Amino acid sequence: MAHDPRPVTLVTLLGSLRSGSLHAAVARALPALAPEGVTVLALGSIAELPHYDADLQAVGFPPAVLAMADAIRAADGVVVVTPEYNYSVPGSLKNALDWLSRVTPQPFAGKPVAIQTGSPGMIGGAHAQYHLRQTMVFLDAHVLNRPEIMIGGMHDKIDAETGTITDRTTADLIGQQLAALAAMA
Amino acid sequence: MAHDPRPVTLVTLLGSLRSGSLHAAVARALPALAPEGVTVLALGSIAELPHYDADLQAVGFPPAVLAMADAIRAADGVVVVTPEYNYSVPGSLKNALDWLSRVTPQPFAGKPVAIQTGSPGMIGGAHAQYHLRQTMVFLDAHVLNRPEIMIGGMHDKIDAETGTITDRTTADLIGQQLAALAAMA
Amino acid sequence: MAHDPRPVTLVTLLGSLRSGSLHAAVARALPALAPEGVTVLALGSIAELPHYDADLQAVGFPPAVLAMADAIRAADGVVVVTPEYNYSVPGSLKNALDWLSRVTPQPFAGKPVAIQTGSPGMIGGAHAQYHLRQTMVFLDAHVLNRPEIMIGGMHDKIDAETGTITDRTTADLIGQQLAALAAMA
Amino acid sequence: MAHDPRPVTLVTLLGSLRSGSLHAAVARALPALAPEGVTVLALGSIAELPHYDADLQAVGFPPAVLAMADAIRAADGVVVVTPEYNYSVPGSLKNALDWLSRVTPQPFAGKPVAIQTGSPGMIGGAHAQYHLRQTMVFLDAHVLNRPEIMIGGMHDKIDAETGTITDRTTADLIGQQLAALAAMA
Repeated sequence: MAHDPRPVTLVTLLGSLRSGSLHAAVARALPALAPEGVTVLALGSIAELPHYDADLQAVGFPPAVLAMADAIRAADGVVVVTPEYNYSVPGSLKNALDWLSRVTPQPFAGKPVAIQTGSPGMIGGAHAQYHLRQTMVFLDAHVLNRPEIMIGGMHDKIDAETGTITDRTTADLIGQQLAALAAMA
Repeated sequence: MAHDPRPVTLVTLLGSLRSGSLHAAVARALPALAPEGVTVLALGSIAELPHYDADLQAVGFPPAVLAMADAIRAADGVVVVTPEYNYSVPGSLKNALDWLSRVTPQPFAGKPVAIQTGSPGMIGGAHAQYHLRQTMVFLDAHVLNRPEIMIGGMHDKIDAETGTITDRTTADLIGQQLAALAAMA
Repeated sequence: MAHDPRPVTLVTLLGSLRSGSLHAAVARALPALAPEGVTVLALGSIAELPHYDADLQAVGFPPAVLAMADAIRAADGVVVVTPEYNYSVPGSLKNALDWLSRVTPQPFAGKPVAIQTGSPGMIGGAHAQYHLRQTMVFLDAHVLNRPEIMIGGMHDKIDAETGTITDRTTADLIGQQLAALAAMA
Repeated sequence: MAHDPRPVTLVTLLGSLRSGSLHAAVARALPALAPEGVTVLALGSIAELPHYDADLQAVGFPPAVLAMADAIRAADGVVVVTPEYNYSVPGSLKNALDWLSRVTPQPFAGKPVAIQTGSPGMIGGAHAQYHLRQTMVFLDAHVLNRPEIMIGGMHDKIDAETGTITDRTTADLIGQQLAALAAMA
């Protein structure tokens, strides 16, 4: 699938806070896997955001929320890279979405989104993907259907030391997804 | 449905942080709606917990997590009272579950759980209920099937000033759910 | 939202078999609610299809399946109008999708789809909507995000005798959805 | 986990119609994998049931529906063995549940249920499991949490010729699930 020749910028939203996170390694690998003309930038850390609280919002959105919203609005698409916790989306990632959903104009409205999950087991985060898709319907985002990236057996496909995706099939599929997202954007 | 005559203790886990929260009002109303012999206690606030981070866990669980886990283990059942955010569970509530799921012994294992959601609109939080149920399968909790509490049109059923549940049908249904949970416990 | 001036054809897939079905009444009302230049045609009945069986498929697709697949491929978009049964999609509607998914080229691939559910109670079929959306991801369809049509209290909004949508808000929202689908198509 | 010494009868509900179905092979293997004192019987085929239609119901439930309902009520638990179609439950299996849900007394009310899915790919039917669980909440069934049986790479674990489960880990896990279901019953 060919993407539009104009430059495309994608931003990554990372759902893991652990310093040695394999998902962080995937997120860091995206710029090199993206097709030509597609720039991939990292959004700020979800760890910077307080717990969503309407009382806090009434005082004023935290600057980190506004910066993240601005970066998403300025981008052509968003790549969410996240582990699955307890058959769903990590709470801290959902908390970021809860904040972002309240900002006006809402940054995900009409925005192309791709999802990448992975797990040590074989399922690869399938449950989290569908919870995230349901939230994205509410946010009026356009979530890419295919290819779906659910990296099962993640520890055998990513070198934890170097943070390299060592499994060629996984790397290729991610490259295809980024191209499809860029084409949609 | 008659519940066991021995004393039963339930604890409430609240998914909203806002001071004037209608869900907080529901949670505060539970002790008075519970059948005789059933005590309902509030768990600590989910606002006290940091974002889940495996690196933090490696250093040691936050005391607030351990206290919450202890209180759940000591209880006969848990009532989750929560709004729905963006068609799912509030991130900060899910974050509490993400922490609790890592404590050993895991506090929700085999624990009876009831869910109460509400919303200003007519749906009453139906989407959040099913995401929470899916997480509870992973945690091996026993979630009550009936009655389901999804309070649609919440603003017309709870007095925001006094925090009283003014809708008799809603209050009765909540009482029935607490009795069913106590019977299950 | 303005739709493309070229003629647009939508087809309706009905999930209820009952002769006096309120959902059938909604489906029949769509041609009159559609914007100018948008034709709405009914697909054949899902009642005509046998239970999906790979052995039957090996012998040859039933003609009713192939006719339905052809009609969907020829259309610019599909409107699914369905009740919710047991917190999910009616089995006979899902059976139609199971057949259609096997036809080559797969008729839902890349096809704009809108969903309309309703129920006697207040929830309006919210659970069925999300199961259907998940299936549509697998089929690579493009499901419209907004407006979502979940008709709660359906019996008060549709005249069972005449099959007329008597609730103006519901009729308007359906008209808006058809316009949005036509614009997407 | 020890099960009650009294005899326990489980019935299997099969979601595939294909004669050479690997899921049918799993269902046929259950009697031999069940612990001592646990009898596993097959329910009638879902292929015998017409599409659910309230007009048909008004005339009278099909005898095959009533027979299936009687067999479920007489059993101590139900094992659902099913493939996943299009990220959800096969339509013909859901159709059986749609019929059974209308019979009085409703046969799944309070009934212990276990779910077994499998797929050629690695995911093993995870999506279908959660749609089925949601339906079972509406039916007030008690679905076993653990162990979950999602057989990924099914073609390498079952001998299609003989219908034998050749993968020891899978067979053991199924045995453990049947014991857990019998203990719950």
